[in-house]
Amino acid sequence: MPHGEDRERDVCTSCAMIHYQNPRMIVGCIIEHEGSILLCKRAIEPRLGFWTIPAGFMEIGETAPAGAARESYEEATARVRILAPYVHFDVVHIAQAYIVYRAELLRGDDAALFAPGEESLEVKLVRPEEIPWTELAFGAVYYALKLYVEDVASGRYRTHLGSISREGGKFVLNDHLALPVG
Amino acid sequence: MPHGEDRERDVCTSCAMIHYQNPRMIVGCIIEHEGSILLCKRAIEPRLGFWTIPAGFMEIGETAPAGAARESYEEATARVRILAPYVHFDVVHIAQAYIVYRAELLRGDDAALFAPGEESLEVKLVRPEEIPWTELAFGAVYYALKLYVEDVASGRYRTHLGSISREGGKFVLNDHLALPVG
Repeated sequence: MPHGEDRERDVCTSCAMIHYQNPRMIVGCIIEHEGSILLCKRAIEPRLGFWTIPAGFMEIGETAPAGAARESYEEATARVRILAPYVHFDVVHIAQAYIVYRAELLRGDDAALFAPGEESLEVKLVRPEEIPWTELAFGAVYYALKLYVEDVASGRYRTHLGSISREGGKFVLNDHLALPVG
Repeated sequence: MPHGEDRERDVCTSCAMIHYQNPRMIVGCIIEHEGSILLCKRAIEPRLGFWTIPAGFMEIGETAPAGAARESYEEATARVRILAPYVHFDVVHIAQAYIVYRAELLRGDDAALFAPGEESLEVKLVRPEEIPWTELAFGAVYYALKLYVEDVASGRYRTHLGSISREGGKFVLNDHLALPVG
């Protein structure tokens, strides 16, 4: 425990440098297009073959919305415009913060609006009633889409805070705070 | 550059473990009480002697709102309830994401609502017109409070996205997106 700190840290036994570890941000987006949203079938582990929204670790040198747009291009060659913050879910047991925006699909340079990137087997637009609930890759994505479908049905988007835990093999949404936005 | 990656990473020359570095989250809150907000005068570097809102690095094992509440207690022995997401500013040049909530001050176990914690020289409630603009510690805090004062004056809180850069010795707010909340 370094001087002035209240918890144990990883300290180099050679040079005494403190190696801080903090939660990491996963940035992504729910991409809307003509009443549908874009889903990607994962070509990589973890959860190969399961469906997700474009999302990934935020990198140094970019903003969170820029990271979400980058992931959309990497996973689905989709150009997007970020519309609004949508979800911040902390997944405490794996030290990840899922930060998800609503975005709209833009027309790119070529005719195709989207196509599988290197990390995707397949990319498609699905209507809310077509979301493959039992084949979603991650708990945070499951709850983001569940709330999205509720919001679309009610005609009013909200911004959602909460945390995701895993209990008895199931993901649970805790401390959910939802406020209308826009 | 590890196999399958598109950028350089720190890789251990002994065991080949990849040491990913990602932006870190600073979580904090604007604490409201009877038309005033709580400010802390910093007792530590950086920016010793300057004023800020309670905020600090999010830790592994906590949610972002819980981290903001923890910082409020550590810096001002203030018990708070998180009300709504308020600001997400990416400070790209230092790889930090400032995530700020609006919160309300709660009555604790003792009579005092707040007092300086170990990292603060002084803690006080200020009305919007009393905010010491030229003595604020950080660019992200300056813009969070500027927008807060605007929102209070207009009678409608918004949620704010943006990034902070430093240009010619001055902090600049870029890509500001503001949406009414609640």
